Amino acid sequence: MRILLTNDDGIFAEGLCALYDALCEDHEVFVVAPEAERSAVGHAITIADPLRIKKVKRGNVFFGYAVNGTPADCVKIAIHELIGPGIDLVLSGINRGANVGINVLYSGTVSAATEGVILGYPGIAVSLGEYREPDYCFAAYFASCLLDALKDYNSEEIFCLNVNVPFLPAHKIKGIKFVKQSTAPLIEKFEKRVDPHGNIYYWQCSERFTETDPETDVVALKEGFITITPLHYNLTSEKVLKKLASWKIEF
Amino acid sequence: MRILLTNDDGIFAEGLCALYDALCEDHEVFVVAPEAERSAVGHAITIADPLRIKKVKRGNVFFGYAVNGTPADCVKIAIHELIGPGIDLVLSGINRGANVGINVLYSGTVSAATEGVILGYPGIAVSLGEYREPDYCFAAYFASCLLDALKDYNSEEIFCLNVNVPFLPAHKIKGIKFVKQSTAPLIEKFEKRVDPHGNIYYWQCSERFTETDPETDVVALKEGFITITPLHYNLTSEKVLKKLASWKIEF
Repeated sequence: MRILLTNDDGIFAEGLCALYDALCEDHEVFVVAPEAERSAVGHAITIADPLRIKKVKRGNVFFGYAVNGTPADCVKIAIHELIGPGIDLVLSGINRGANVGINVLYSGTVSAATEGVILGYPGIAVSLGEYREPDYCFAAYFASCLLDALKDYNSEEIFCLNVNVPFLPAHKIKGIKFVKQSTAPLIEKFEKRVDPHGNIYYWQCSERFTETDPETDVVALKEGFITITPLHYNLTSEKVLKKLASWKIEF
Repeated sequence: MRILLTNDDGIFAEGLCALYDALCEDHEVFVVAPEAERSAVGHAITIADPLRIKKVKRGNVFFGYAVNGTPADCVKIAIHELIGPGIDLVLSGINRGANVGINVLYSGTVSAATEGVILGYPGIAVSLGEYREPDYCFAAYFASCLLDALKDYNSEEIFCLNVNVPFLPAHKIKGIKFVKQSTAPLIEKFEKRVDPHGNIYYWQCSERFTETDPETDVVALKEGFITITPLHYNLTSEKVLKKLASWKIEF
């Protein structure tokens, strides 16, 4: 396959390199990724500033293109300018930290995969459920197995898969679960601090999910399953749309 | 109603002030908005940098809180820290420029309303279909009518409405249409330029929508209707999820 590889942790991130190394023998992999970390940027795009591109080496060999933009920018400029339309898959990751539940909305990694689908290509986002001391070895291996399995997967529509791999020894992983995205709230808070100049500032912290349904990405990942959630980008609530039809608004 | 008012064009934007002025007599309006323009940031949140808050005056009177973050940050910090949970509505806008079709995914304005819903409050995003020389007068008036009409709208679920008002004289507006979000691609391009130092840079430009379905936000707005699209934030594709159940991935 011809694969466009990107992420939101930046082009030099360990997770991206692990994925590249796991795939570059069997596939043609093009790297176009943010020049620096752009986590939690969601589906942001850059329209008020110009984008610049740098060629990046790993060791002494050309590795890919670094963009001073968001993951969604990377996918757009890769396809419209740098690589051209002839690719088979947009692959994003491996993200440092899980992207499950409502965090999917905030995730640059997932938005890159979604952007692929918007542009007409299948998209897969891969994240590892560990932030502090990640080891991407197994998750990268799993991604290569997933790509092999794509040969047998006949889809009429262009799919977008959000994949999360638990940070566990391989033998402790319970299997793969196809699950929905949790929409349960996060328990979150702002930590108020005072800087050395006497000014107040806040750190935004999410503490934990409130989800309990085992058929969601949040719970299944916590229980030790690799989770796969197919995503779409039609945000219309059809249920509410039907109800609205009879609503009268005078103006 | 107790309304949290925010936007993505920044706290001093004309569209926000127009909305404030149209609502402040009949409602209690709290303003918490980005200190500067944060357009197209999508559902980005700020986690790697601290957030700071400034009290802002309009004339000589306290107007609201300016945040060095995204629209979604503003909603979160407003409810968790600045105003507290006792509000009836998160209102976002009036955005300079329409937010229809896949641009809904990139919109900070819409994401602020969605963030309200995530936190348990109804959310409404209002945008005006004009970027160059906007006049928010009618759109602000319509928003006040919409809020009046909410009294008669009994919804079991917490709704999120994406409202777009065409930039037309009031008598030329054809009415209100409840429509779905278009998912059709944008025709977009990158304009390549050379800076005075000889370096290449790119401007990202979206040229036009390819949508033709009159029952979508894109076409209905273009035809002169006020569009109202109910949104959700469950990104699971249930259709694909059902199909995936039988897929075997060896690892």
